[in-house]
Amino acid sequence: MNPNPSSAYGLSRRVLLSALAGLPALFGPLRPTPASAQGDRLPSWNDGASKSAITDFVARVTTQGSPDFVPADQRVATFDNDGTLWCEHPMYVQLAFILDRVKELAPLHPDWKTRQPFQAVLDGDPKALAASGEKGLVELMAATHAGMTTEEFEKVVIGWLDSARHPRFKRPYTELVYQPMLELLVHLRANGFKTFIASGGGIEFMRPWTERIYGIPPEQVVGSSIKTRFELRDGRPVLFRLPDINFIDDGAGKPVGINEHIGRRPIAAFGNSDGDLQMLQWTTLSGGVRFGLIVHHTDAEREYAYDRDTHFGKLDKALDAATQNRWTVVDMKKDWKRVFAFQ
Amino acid sequence: MNPNPSSAYGLSRRVLLSALAGLPALFGPLRPTPASAQGDRLPSWNDGASKSAITDFVARVTTQGSPDFVPADQRVATFDNDGTLWCEHPMYVQLAFILDRVKELAPLHPDWKTRQPFQAVLDGDPKALAASGEKGLVELMAATHAGMTTEEFEKVVIGWLDSARHPRFKRPYTELVYQPMLELLVHLRANGFKTFIASGGGIEFMRPWTERIYGIPPEQVVGSSIKTRFELRDGRPVLFRLPDINFIDDGAGKPVGINEHIGRRPIAAFGNSDGDLQMLQWTTLSGGVRFGLIVHHTDAEREYAYDRDTHFGKLDKALDAATQNRWTVVDMKKDWKRVFAFQ
Repeated sequence: MNPNPSSAYGLSRRVLLSALAGLPALFGPLRPTPASAQGDRLPSWNDGASKSAITDFVARVTTQGSPDFVPADQRVATFDNDGTLWCEHPMYVQLAFILDRVKELAPLHPDWKTRQPFQAVLDGDPKALAASGEKGLVELMAATHAGMTTEEFEKVVIGWLDSARHPRFKRPYTELVYQPMLELLVHLRANGFKTFIASGGGIEFMRPWTERIYGIPPEQVVGSSIKTRFELRDGRPVLFRLPDINFIDDGAGKPVGINEHIGRRPIAAFGNSDGDLQMLQWTTLSGGVRFGLIVHHTDAEREYAYDRDTHFGKLDKALDAATQNRWTVVDMKKDWKRVFAFQ
Repeated sequence: MNPNPSSAYGLSRRVLLSALAGLPALFGPLRPTPASAQGDRLPSWNDGASKSAITDFVARVTTQGSPDFVPADQRVATFDNDGTLWCEHPMYVQLAFILDRVKELAPLHPDWKTRQPFQAVLDGDPKALAASGEKGLVELMAATHAGMTTEEFEKVVIGWLDSARHPRFKRPYTELVYQPMLELLVHLRANGFKTFIASGGGIEFMRPWTERIYGIPPEQVVGSSIKTRFELRDGRPVLFRLPDINFIDDGAGKPVGINEHIGRRPIAAFGNSDGDLQMLQWTTLSGGVRFGLIVHHTDAEREYAYDRDTHFGKLDKALDAATQNRWTVVDMKKDWKRVFAFQ
């Protein structure tokens, strides 16, 4: 079994997402990966039911004259991020950011050495952190995500992602994206789909790198957020980040966030956890040929194996619903030739 | 002077926008108007400083090698809607919807005949409506915008816009869009810009027709909104509209809404009232070649003339700021060859 820091720290998913609502983004925008001009567009997928389900669906909705044809402007596809497009174990990347950031800021706050929940983070004391509860996590969020402008925060996140490394794979987190899913994004866009992220993670944590890594521009990213306030500072306009949750884009919040940002109902949705259940329902249960897919983490060797018993990406109700609703369940171990590009 | 129903009804802009936060949209999506292949892209604009300012700006930011060149993915332009893209007098279109809708629903609510604020609307009694204050308007909003699914509401709005006519021009409201601004939208998109709406009006009131009328798809519309709740009803997923304000996209809220939805700072912004002041500041006051434009309603003959003394589209502080910040102020009477396509 992998260590389970979420459980150790006693964090509920909702509280955690509240804490993650803020983060911005890295690097410059890059071009989306070009689709291969011909041949297999999904080379990292093994042949089988999952791959066929994808290619069949795309063919049905894009074939002119077919009764299932969907005009290009209605080909909206939404993707969860953590655990669906990139690795979410041994903990959400954004939680790793919070913990690192507290350590980095500690010298400026000598009182943190003896003040909870900061002391718990600095001492690496999960019990004490758990004891600080939701209130503690909100304090950590305020200390690491708010109290600065959106531009300042973006720089902080870019700097952190530049230097942070995944504890097991010893690589930047942005290299721990699933190669088969990147191919899927490209395949959909090559077929006229507009691809969106709909993540419980912080909208400003994703936007700076989603275009470079996924080919998804900032305006197509939906996520959790904290409140901001417009201010003129010495004549310069800024948005100041406040320690208050604005929106939690998770669970029943995902259809709400998708409707608010996109204004169309997706025809395909991709997730990996119970936090994606309502997005998959919203997408697939209103008639028409629709596509729902769940990434099932079954590969402890190349990545991680977890489902019903984990605090990061718990897959329980949505796994049952997948059978009921005939969503495609990807068996990572069987269906993917490789998980990461470097493998 | 034109009648001023806002003043007569004693409604503040903020309260009004709260009430307007809900509405959805009409018709099917249509293709954007194609840019003319050659020649004057802005034929409804008279030659002069305003037209030159637009074409000069576009040339500067799109000329490769120019020090002012802006890559295409950063060419974001945001447009206010009421009074900037379509007519907002003698009252906001969405307010006309509310008043009509109360009259239409009255037979189902016999008590409205003797219950404020409904009685005031049914009797055409502005004084009594004003006396009901913010509480009254929130009740009107709840009665006309909430208590149904997003799909039901969209149908209501589509039906209303199909039949409603502007009291002076006797035409559907969607014909009362400014032809010079339509040309401007097309000109910007032809030069690689992505055009967005950032309006105080209800996001769901605009989305159904903005693609057909403006060439702006639903996902590029930012506006005010009420809260929604995801529900499964007999196994069918719906979003149910609640009588609670979610977000007011006006004034200092516009940069917040723009950042939340778009995640990039615009390089050009277009407005007509004090509600656009902060959007114009956010866009133009952070360095780089930026463009701010204000539509000044100076044409009582072809449309309306108003600025500092009106409750719909009050232009006071933003007019002063325009001089200070060298924003382009369009003199509708002088700068526009025609206002509407039918003129």
